[in-house]
Amino acid sequence: MREDVNLQWRIAARPQGNVRSEDFELHECPVPQPGDGEFLLRTLYLGVRPVMRMYMQGLPAAGETPLDIGDVIHGRGVGQVVASRHADYQPGDIVQGQLGWQTWKVSRGSAAERFIKMPAGAPCVHGAGATGMNGFSAYFGLLDCGRPQAGETVLVSAAAGGVGSTVVQLARILGCRVIGIAGGAAKCRLLQQLGCAASIDYKNEAVAARIAELCPDGIDVYFDNVGGETLSAVLENLAMHARIVLCGSISEYMRDTPFGLTNYTRLRAVNGCMQGFFVYNYAERFAEAGRRLADWISSGQLQPVQSIVEGFENMPQALADLYDGSNAGIQICRVRGEPSECAPVPDNVLQP
Amino acid sequence: MREDVNLQWRIAARPQGNVRSEDFELHECPVPQPGDGEFLLRTLYLGVRPVMRMYMQGLPAAGETPLDIGDVIHGRGVGQVVASRHADYQPGDIVQGQLGWQTWKVSRGSAAERFIKMPAGAPCVHGAGATGMNGFSAYFGLLDCGRPQAGETVLVSAAAGGVGSTVVQLARILGCRVIGIAGGAAKCRLLQQLGCAASIDYKNEAVAARIAELCPDGIDVYFDNVGGETLSAVLENLAMHARIVLCGSISEYMRDTPFGLTNYTRLRAVNGCMQGFFVYNYAERFAEAGRRLADWISSGQLQPVQSIVEGFENMPQALADLYDGSNAGIQICRVRGEPSECAPVPDNVLQP
Repeated sequence: MREDVNLQWRIAARPQGNVRSEDFELHECPVPQPGDGEFLLRTLYLGVRPVMRMYMQGLPAAGETPLDIGDVIHGRGVGQVVASRHADYQPGDIVQGQLGWQTWKVSRGSAAERFIKMPAGAPCVHGAGATGMNGFSAYFGLLDCGRPQAGETVLVSAAAGGVGSTVVQLARILGCRVIGIAGGAAKCRLLQQLGCAASIDYKNEAVAARIAELCPDGIDVYFDNVGGETLSAVLENLAMHARIVLCGSISEYMRDTPFGLTNYTRLRAVNGCMQGFFVYNYAERFAEAGRRLADWISSGQLQPVQSIVEGFENMPQALADLYDGSNAGIQICRVRGEPSECAPVPDNVLQP
Repeated sequence: MREDVNLQWRIAARPQGNVRSEDFELHECPVPQPGDGEFLLRTLYLGVRPVMRMYMQGLPAAGETPLDIGDVIHGRGVGQVVASRHADYQPGDIVQGQLGWQTWKVSRGSAAERFIKMPAGAPCVHGAGATGMNGFSAYFGLLDCGRPQAGETVLVSAAAGGVGSTVVQLARILGCRVIGIAGGAAKCRLLQQLGCAASIDYKNEAVAARIAELCPDGIDVYFDNVGGETLSAVLENLAMHARIVLCGSISEYMRDTPFGLTNYTRLRAVNGCMQGFFVYNYAERFAEAGRRLADWISSGQLQPVQSIVEGFENMPQALADLYDGSNAGIQICRVRGEPSECAPVPDNVLQP
């Protein structure tokens, strides 16, 4: 990868169906220089998440500004400060935040671009996943919205995915009985390794019947990453005071007409609750979540499931892989990797 | 009304569309005699509520046993103990609870037939409405599920109905800005009298547009009595941390195919919550609610809106009136009225 230019992935076309290479344009421009009150970051890792396809569609979703054709795609990850004219950021600092799909970024560190310092000693890579947005979604969604108690039954959909695989482990750490839904035997084996008491293979099993069979006393907490028919089946199997956490609806992304939920009134008989949740609403508490997640990782209780795609040029394919179901765990692109692995910063980049 | 027989309204046919007189059968049988551990009640008032049509359809809803053709229709109201072989109930006691559509009832006072003594000095009639099930639904739905704070915007649908007219007033008492939705100018005038800051006439106004116009900062609490399109419109206008209380869905009762809610994911961006709620889940706290509601009534803060249908023979018509939109407020049937208005208990009824 060339270090003396800024490489950017921009939107070439609005995706229809899964993203294709024609939807992306690789753009090359000068490395930006930090002005007064600014700092320059080089990208180490970028997280790859399903919401990015929504960014490409220009949907006003997920707390980021809607994008036009030609814009750099939003993306959070881990970067290192290499030059700074900002009091709060020093060269060498490792931070995570909104970098965009690019290899260099200049930021003012404004409220909308709040970069969080990585916990000391934590592997950088987790800042793009397990102690980054995937971890935050799992942490706030499960703990704050789901409020699981030890001994309760927690059902997780897309449980082998980036958020789901973290939710499964957090629920297990909290002493819950965890059931995961995923596609295929390999992913279901993974779920058992992560601590699921049982798994449901949605590609080969009747999901609604299996949910009823595995949850005879009802579901206490459902962490919903998929929406659609699975949510509907869950609503038929709720325990008293059940909590449904609406985190994602990956089943909707590919649908032409949205799914109509007819049985939401099932929440009534059990005084159940469907709690929507959006991770940016917890931005003030990201650092807290990062520390707790890092602690669970360093104690060995939480083992991030991640697959690393090598090279910035492979970002488009990494996103496409999230949608065809081939990927398991947190999807991360290694742009440069750990600071020790990085090429030296070229002289022409540091001329403030 | 004959006092020496027990009159019962039984299900003659499952209703299709609104209830019709052919769906009911008036049955005459001997007044039951209380055995050991039992007591005999005479019915003073019966509440009339939309859920009764579901009882007639045999739906396993609303915490009551499903009914067959020929069964006495479920119904709660106020009765007076006239004979007792049960230690907890004395002749003269005024109680509210599950009487059924009949003029006499013998009960064992089991858990499923828990009768609550009316607060001393409270008008009997309110036990069939404002301090009975209508009031309980408003009280627990709004206070426990909606958790409104002073200054918040509370939207209520079917706001001129039995539950809605109570919710509107409770929200006003709690210091909220209340907006009510009802059908027709007369009901909307009523809403303003009850303390609504604004009203929406769903028969003559574009509900979704009016909601957006009246709630520019979003809805904090929506008390949903109707479901369907109105709920969908509310989901487009939520404030941060909005709470939707699912109490009823009268718009569904008459629908052939259930409404499919496509935009429930709007709960995500605002960390909103859709809380189902079923009044029988609060049975342990009915007495508490009854006392607080009676206090608000006696202080003049809560003015029950009720229409009284005279005579047990008119129960079927009273139920039909709930569905054609002609009724406002709590619908109550005066079977015998206050104890002072009752005919003496015939001798043949008191022969234990």
